This record gives sequence, structure tokens and C-alpha cells, in this order.
Amino acid sequence: MNRQELGALIQKKKSFLCVGLDTDPDKLPAHLTKDANGVLDFNKAIIDSTLSFAVAYKLNIAFYEALGIEGWRALQETIAYIPKGESLIIADAKRGDIGNTANQYAKAFFENLDCDAITVNPYMGRDSVEPFLLYPGKWTIALGLTSNIGALDIEMLDLANGRKVYEDAIESLAKLGNEDNLMFVVGATKADYFDKIRAIIPNHFLLVPGVGAQGGNLEDLKEVMTNDCGLLVNSSRQIIYADSTEEFAEKAAIQAEKLQLQMSEMLK
Amino acid sequence: MNRQELGALIQKKKSFLCVGLDTDPDKLPAHLTKDANGVLDFNKAIIDSTLSFAVAYKLNIAFYEALGIEGWRALQETIAYIPKGESLIIADAKRGDIGNTANQYAKAFFENLDCDAITVNPYMGRDSVEPFLLYPGKWTIALGLTSNIGALDIEMLDLANGRKVYEDAIESLAKLGNEDNLMFVVGATKADYFDKIRAIIPNHFLLVPGVGAQGGNLEDLKEVMTNDCGLLVNSSRQIIYADSTEEFAEKAAIQAEKLQLQMSEMLK
Repeated sequence: MNRQELGALIQKKKSFLCVGLDTDPDKLPAHLTKDANGVLDFNKAIIDSTLSFAVAYKLNIAFYEALGIEGWRALQETIAYIPKGESLIIADAKRGDIGNTANQYAKAFFENLDCDAITVNPYMGRDSVEPFLLYPGKWTIALGLTSNIGALDIEMLDLANGRKVYEDAIESLAKLGNEDNLMFVVGATKADYFDKIRAIIPNHFLLVPGVGAQGGNLEDLKEVMTNDCGLLVNSSRQIIYADSTEEFAEKAAIQAEKLQLQMSEMLK
Repeated sequence: MNRQELGALIQKKKSFLCVGLDTDPDKLPAHLTKDANGVLDFNKAIIDSTLSFAVAYKLNIAFYEALGIEGWRALQETIAYIPKGESLIIADAKRGDIGNTANQYAKAFFENLDCDAITVNPYMGRDSVEPFLLYPGKWTIALGLTSNIGALDIEMLDLANGRKVYEDAIESLAKLGNEDNLMFVVGATKADYFDKIRAIIPNHFLLVPGVGAQGGNLEDLKEVMTNDCGLLVNSSRQIIYADSTEEFAEKAAIQAEKLQLQMSEMLK
């Protein structure tokens, strides 16, 4: 899915919502089995109920790997279940290795699983990101500035040039790709830094986790929007675990629609 | 496997060799099938032939994920094939995510796959490393300073305090664990920086890739050795692809023994 198609989807659904499928067997409603089959059934129901409100689904790969072979199968089948072209499929894998290893991860997520996008961890620099950018029509989403406490340990360190590590990181990574194949992860609680980030990448799409449960405010994101939105805002727990009964999918849809309505206003 | 056991293994085998199982179906000898079954057969033969020279096996997870479900099965069965306690089993996964996601990765690699160690990517800081350190008897191996060109983009940036990013990263990560549960990845071609690294972590084990094919010199590593060695040196291609005929395993053993003999001298 290219940028124009993503922009069109955002306009059509009046939404820039990404639903995070961080599906944990231990948190499934009681009527579903606490295993990979239950995870798949849960995901399908969530996708059915939220597809009209979401322009992206983000699959948190860790949750599937924790279930071994059956988890990988649930991952494959969940991806196959999402209607192609009706939402961006993001593998939230945060892979961060170089060269031929990165090639193999790209093959796993872009070729075999046919995801539209993958999140990558840029600590090792250019050669940990470039292999993913070679895939036409696919998106690479690099960690930029995250909202966790650990962001202080590396991302927020002060550089000799007066900037912080995340700024130089974003600047050098931005040169590897372009606005049509590269996005950045920016934490929603980092509003104080939005200006600095947009000064470096005025037009790249940002993937923003942490609205809702993690404390970020949707309205704060208005200032980072581009002409074609330039934003994907992820919500996981607030939507998928809105309810723990047999009505979980309907309740998830209500939460998703609530966010979509706010987004619709912001898109005007 | 705790540090004492690892040290005893190094003494017993007179080796600190780690064999990297970056097994690529396209590079298998002609008599093996170019799929996950071929990968498993190859790995078993390599393990059989190198076990007396290697104190560790490092499985590059990307190569298995690129093969999907069957790749995950080959990964499981390879790990199950390595005799417990006779070598350290490292999942070279370079996972780099936080909180509950990191918990899930820890579960996948430490519980389900029963690896002894996992490599992690520390860009997101403390909360991307701590969840792995909670497992007693397991090792977390954080990226420190790598030898790829991309190391210039983040790891080698100059900080306002006069140090480089990797130094502050190693220092803050070292505080999260201890010498018995935390190692660092340091590139073998980074000899100019060994002093600085040992000034920060005088006694932690270092996992060093890049000897041989990637240009690092084994002898240079003498200066970073600790009383109980404190080093694992990885070699992948140079060993496992030493030969592409039916004699690949014997030829791999010859390469492994060659390195082991050098190591034996260094351990004296």
C-alpha cells in the first residue's frame, strides 16, 4: 500500500486509527480457549467489528512467538484474514539486526507473511534499516522517540552538537528512505518534542502508540498532522480488552468508533 | 547455565568458541533439501561435528523465521538436539521492545524454546532489557558496540559529556543486571575501543562476532579477557559453510578445531 492509497483510506474511513492486536491468551474472554486457536478467533472477531473504523492493524509479534508454532500459525491466519487494501498490516516486530540477517527478517515479514509494514529498531544504524527499504510498496517504521522511561537511557541522551540522540537518529535514518516508504514511531506523550521532530521530518508519517491507556492525548497530535494526515495512532488494550464477555467485539467496536469520531473531527 | 558453569565449560573444552547457526537453505550442500528439513539435518550434523570445540551455539532467529512455521519447527528441534549443559544456547534475536512485549519475547525464548541466552537491542533503554533479566540462570546479551558501518549512526555519536553513545549505553545497562546474567555484544574489529569498554565493564562476558569472515583478529581479543575468560567469540560462515559437499560437517569441524587450538593458547 503506497502513501496515496493510505491517504485515500484515511479520507474514506475518516480515521487514522491503528488497532493493536497484542492478543494475550490469558486475557481472552472466558468462552474462548486460552491458546492460539482462541487468539485467532478473538482476532477475527475484533477485525470484523473494527474494520470500518481502523485504517491499520498492528500485530505485536512477541505475543504470537510466545505461543510457538501454533502462535506463528495464528499470526499467519490473522494476517490472511485482514482484507487486503482495506487496512495497512503492520508487523510490530522491532527487529534490529543488519545485512543478511535483516534480509531474512524482511523476507519473513514482507514476503512470507505479506505484511505491508514492519517496525524496526535502529540502534545498529543504516544497515539495519536499508534492507527493508528495498521492498517496493512496503513500509519501514523506525523507532524514533518512544514514551517509555527507558527512552532516557539512549534516545534522550544529550549530544555534543546540542541535540539529543533521537534527533540525529531520525535525521540520518530519514536520508535512507523517503516519505513514501519510511515512517517513524513517536510516543504520544512526547508532545514537548513534536516541534523538533517535525522540523527534521516535516512530512513523514508517524506511528503513535500510547494514546489512551498509556496516557497520551489525541488532541495534542493535531500539530503534527500533514496535508494527508501523516499520522497513524495506535490503540491496543483500550479497544481489544474493552470487555471480557461474549460481547467483547461489539464493545471493541464502540471504543474504536469513539476514537474514529474524534479523528474525523481532527481531519476536517 | 550460570557463570561458574560457563567458565568450567570453557576450561574443559579449552575453547570460547561460539558457532553461529545462521543456516540458509540456499547455502546448503546439494544433497540436502533446500527447506526447513534440510536446515535441521544440516544443523544436527554441524552440532555433532563441532560440539567438542564449541562452548556455545548461536541461532540467528531471522533465518528460521524466514521459513515460517516449518522454520520455527527447525529452530525448536535444533535447540532440542543440542545436549543441555554441554554448550550455551544463544537465541540471536536482537529483540528490542518494552514491558509486556519484552515479557512475551522472554517467554518465547527462555521458557518455550528453553534457550540459555538471548541477544537484545537496547535502543528503548532499561525497560527493554529488564524483563529478560528476571529469569534466573538465563543470560541477557545486550548490543554494545557493533562493527558494522551503521554503528556510526547512533552507537558512535559524540555525547555532550565527552563520551560516545555506546559508552553511556553500556554503563546504564550494566547497572540493570550483573556479571552473572548480563553480557554485551562487542564487534571484533573495534579493538581501538576495547580499553574504554573494559573500563566500564571490567568483568562482564563479551560476545564477539566478526572474527574471521568479518575481518576481526582473534589475538586482539587477548586484552579483553578476564580471569575466567570473559569472552565468547562467534564464527558462523567460516565454519558452517567451510565446504559445500557431503563432507561439510567434517570440514566445519576442522575450521572449528583450528579456532579452538588458537583459543586454547590464549587461555593458557
